[in-house]
Amino acid sequence: MQSYATMSKEELQQEFENVKKIYKEYQGKGLKLDMSRGKPSPQQLDLGMEMLDVINSNSDMKAENGIDTRNYGLLDGIPETKRLMAEIMEVSPENVMIFGNSSLNTMFDMVARSMIFGVCGETPWCKLDKVKWLCPVPGYDRHFAVTEHFGIEMINVPMSEDGPDMDMVEELVSSDPAIKGIWCVPKYSNPQGVVYSDETVRRMANLKPAAKDFRIYWDNAYIVHHLYGAEQGKLLNIIDECAKAGNPDMVYEFASTSKVSLAGSGIAAIASSTKNLDDMKRTVTIQTIGFDKVNMLRHARYFQNAAGVLEHMEKHADILRPRFELVLDTLDRELAGRGAGEWIKPKGGYFITYVTLDGCATEVIRLAKEAGVVMTGAGAPFPYHKDPHDSTIRIAPSYPSLEELKDAAEIFAVCVRYATLEKLLQA
Amino acid sequence: MQSYATMSKEELQQEFENVKKIYKEYQGKGLKLDMSRGKPSPQQLDLGMEMLDVINSNSDMKAENGIDTRNYGLLDGIPETKRLMAEIMEVSPENVMIFGNSSLNTMFDMVARSMIFGVCGETPWCKLDKVKWLCPVPGYDRHFAVTEHFGIEMINVPMSEDGPDMDMVEELVSSDPAIKGIWCVPKYSNPQGVVYSDETVRRMANLKPAAKDFRIYWDNAYIVHHLYGAEQGKLLNIIDECAKAGNPDMVYEFASTSKVSLAGSGIAAIASSTKNLDDMKRTVTIQTIGFDKVNMLRHARYFQNAAGVLEHMEKHADILRPRFELVLDTLDRELAGRGAGEWIKPKGGYFITYVTLDGCATEVIRLAKEAGVVMTGAGAPFPYHKDPHDSTIRIAPSYPSLEELKDAAEIFAVCVRYATLEKLLQA
Repeated sequence: MQSYATMSKEELQQEFENVKKIYKEYQGKGLKLDMSRGKPSPQQLDLGMEMLDVINSNSDMKAENGIDTRNYGLLDGIPETKRLMAEIMEVSPENVMIFGNSSLNTMFDMVARSMIFGVCGETPWCKLDKVKWLCPVPGYDRHFAVTEHFGIEMINVPMSEDGPDMDMVEELVSSDPAIKGIWCVPKYSNPQGVVYSDETVRRMANLKPAAKDFRIYWDNAYIVHHLYGAEQGKLLNIIDECAKAGNPDMVYEFASTSKVSLAGSGIAAIASSTKNLDDMKRTVTIQTIGFDKVNMLRHARYFQNAAGVLEHMEKHADILRPRFELVLDTLDRELAGRGAGEWIKPKGGYFITYVTLDGCATEVIRLAKEAGVVMTGAGAPFPYHKDPHDSTIRIAPSYPSLEELKDAAEIFAVCVRYATLEKLLQA
Repeated sequence: MQSYATMSKEELQQEFENVKKIYKEYQGKGLKLDMSRGKPSPQQLDLGMEMLDVINSNSDMKAENGIDTRNYGLLDGIPETKRLMAEIMEVSPENVMIFGNSSLNTMFDMVARSMIFGVCGETPWCKLDKVKWLCPVPGYDRHFAVTEHFGIEMINVPMSEDGPDMDMVEELVSSDPAIKGIWCVPKYSNPQGVVYSDETVRRMANLKPAAKDFRIYWDNAYIVHHLYGAEQGKLLNIIDECAKAGNPDMVYEFASTSKVSLAGSGIAAIASSTKNLDDMKRTVTIQTIGFDKVNMLRHARYFQNAAGVLEHMEKHADILRPRFELVLDTLDRELAGRGAGEWIKPKGGYFITYVTLDGCATEVIRLAKEAGVVMTGAGAPFPYHKDPHDSTIRIAPSYPSLEELKDAAEIFAVCVRYATLEKLLQA
C-alpha cells in the first residue's frame, strides 16, 4: 500500500474523496457498535457458570483448616484459595491475602491506608505537602482515576515494547522522595498488551527509592490471560526479584479472577512481603469482619489449582483470539504501510492500542462515533485524560460479536484514514 | 433470695465458703466453654444453605433491569436487591446502595472517606486538629475500634433502657463542632438489647449539630433479628424522622444480611439521602468496579421480599430463643434478688448484658475463665476498652449448644456470686 507520506497533494485529495465516500456508506448503515468496553462477552461469562454449581446446599462448607466458611472469621482468606492465588502468582501462600470482588478496590484501599495511616510507620501521605506518582503511559484509566482522586500528582512515563522507560523511572524515583508509587500492568499491559522485559523487571526490582515508603503497584491483572499460551507472556517474578535485590518490601502485587471466573463475582488477591501484609492487616482487621469466604471456597473447589485456571483460560482465549485476530487483520489489510499510524500485536490481555499520527485520535473517535462505533474516549489511557500527542486509541475487541466487530474494525480503519488525510491536507 | 446487702459479715463469709465449694466443683469438671462470640451457631448457618441452590449453572443471570450480574457494572446494586434491603429498612429503593460482605466495612469506609475527602464539601477530617465522636456505652467494640484507629476522640454517653442519654447528646452535639458522629445500634443494641424509644429517635432526628458534617451512624445491625416477633422491637424510622425534622442528610443507616443468610457471605446496605449517597458515590465509583452482583441476585431471588426475610428470621429466633431463655432463667434462678447485679431481658439481637457491682466484672471474667468458660473481655464494650465502673459483662448465648450453655450460665452465676462476695468481704 502506498504511504500517505509519499503522496502528492492531489493524490491525497483523491484518496480523501474516496475515503469520505466509504465513510458515508458506513454512516448510512445506521450501525450501533461498541469497541470501548474491556468487558468479557456473554460467551466468556458462560464459561464461568459451572462454578456456580460447585457450592450448593449439600456442600461441605468447611475449608481445609476446618473453619466454617459460612461464619465470621479468618481475615486473610481460606487456605485453599490462598494457595490457588499463590500458585497463579508464583509466590508462597503465606505472602497472599484474599479480598472480595474487584482488585481495584484493594488498590484504592492500599492508597487510602497509606494516605491516612502511612506505610510501615512512615508519615501518612495526607500529612505531606505533596505526593507524586509515576504513571507509565498509555495506561489503565482507573489506576489514574484513583491517584487523581487522592490529589496525587501524576507524572507520565513513556512506555516502550519493553515496559516503562526505566532510565526515567530510576532517575525520578531515586531523586524525589515525594514519589511514593508507580502503577504497573506488567503483563499484557492495558492498553498496549506489552509484557515487561526481564531487564525492565530487574531494573524495577533494583530501584533505589528516595522515599522509604515508595511502593510498586504491580497490577498483574492479565496474569493468566494469554491469547497464545503462557510461554508468550513470560514475565519475571517481581516478588522474587525484589527479594533478591534486597528490596523485599518495595512491591504489592495484585491479581483477581474478574476475567477468569465472573467479573461480577470474583475474588481479588494481594501478594507482598510479610512486613507489608502485617502493616496492611493492622488496618484491615479494623475495617472488616472478613471477605466472602463462600465465594473463596467456590473458586478454590472449582479451579483446584493453577493448572485448572490455565486450562480454563484456554477457553477464554479460544473466544478472544478470533476477535483480536479479526481486528488485527483488518488493521493489517486496511492500514499497514499507509503511514497512518502504528499498533502492537498483543499476545494476551484485553486491548489493542492504535497510535495515530499526532493530533488525530480525538478526530478518529469522533468520526467513529458518528458512524455508530463507540470507542474509548481519547485521552482515557492518560493521567488527567490528557494525551500529550492526541494519538493513542484503545480498542477493546472482547465484548462485541465477531459480526459486530467486523463492521466496527472496518469503520475504525476508515476513520483513521479519514482523520489522517484531513490532517495531511491541512498541513 | 436474700440480698447480700442485708447479710451480716458472718453470713457473707458462710455464703462465700459455700460458693467457693460450688466453684471448685465446676472447676474440677475441666470444661471448655465459650460465651464470648456473637456468632450464629452451625444450626443457624444451616438455615442459609438453601440460598446456595438458588443460583446455579441453569439460572437466568440477568437482573430485573436486564443487566448481566456476571459482568462488570452497576455501582449501587441490582434493583431487586436494593428493593429487598429498602423494604427491610422501610425506605425507598433509590435511597439504598448495596455493598459486599460486612457492613462494618461500609462504616469504616464511610469514616475513611470523611477523613480524606470530607463530607458533602466540608473540610476533610484529617485536616482538622481534633475530631470527636459520641459513643453510647456499653456499645459495639468494633465500632469503637474503627474510631480509635482513626485517632478520633471518643466520648462515652451512658445508655438507659430508652437508648443513649439524649440530654447529654443534645448538649454536646449542639455545642462542639469537633463532634462529627455518633455510633448507634438502635434496635436490640449490642450488647444490652435495648430498643431506642420513640422519644429517643425523635430527639436524635431533631439534633441541631454545631458541625454541618455531623452524621448519625445508625447501625441497624439487628433490624429483623427478633426473638419474640417484630412487634416487640418497633423502632421509629430514622430516615423519615430526620426528613421531617429538616435534617434529611444527618443520618447514614446501615444493615446487612450477615446474621440473616450467611455471616461469611452476606450483603451490606446503606440507606441515606440522595445528597449523601451522591457524595459517597463520587468516591466509591473510583474505589471499585462494583460489588458482588451474583450474591446480590442470590439474596434477592431467595428471600424475594421483606416478608420472606421475616419468615426466615423466625427460624433463627426458634434456635436462639431457647438459648437466651436458658441463660436468663439461670440468671433469674441463681442471681435475682441477691443484690449482685442487674440485667435487661432482650427481645432480640445477640447479647445479654450483665451489670455487676462496681469493680467486679474483671474478676468475674477471670474466675469464669479459670473454670473453663470464656467470656468477652472486661471493658470490650467501651471505648479504649475502659469500663469506668468495671461492671459490664457481655454474654453471647448464640454459638454454644444448649448443653454447653447450661453449664456455662451456671458457672457464670457462681462466678458473679464469688466476685461479689469477695468484694463485699473486703469492704
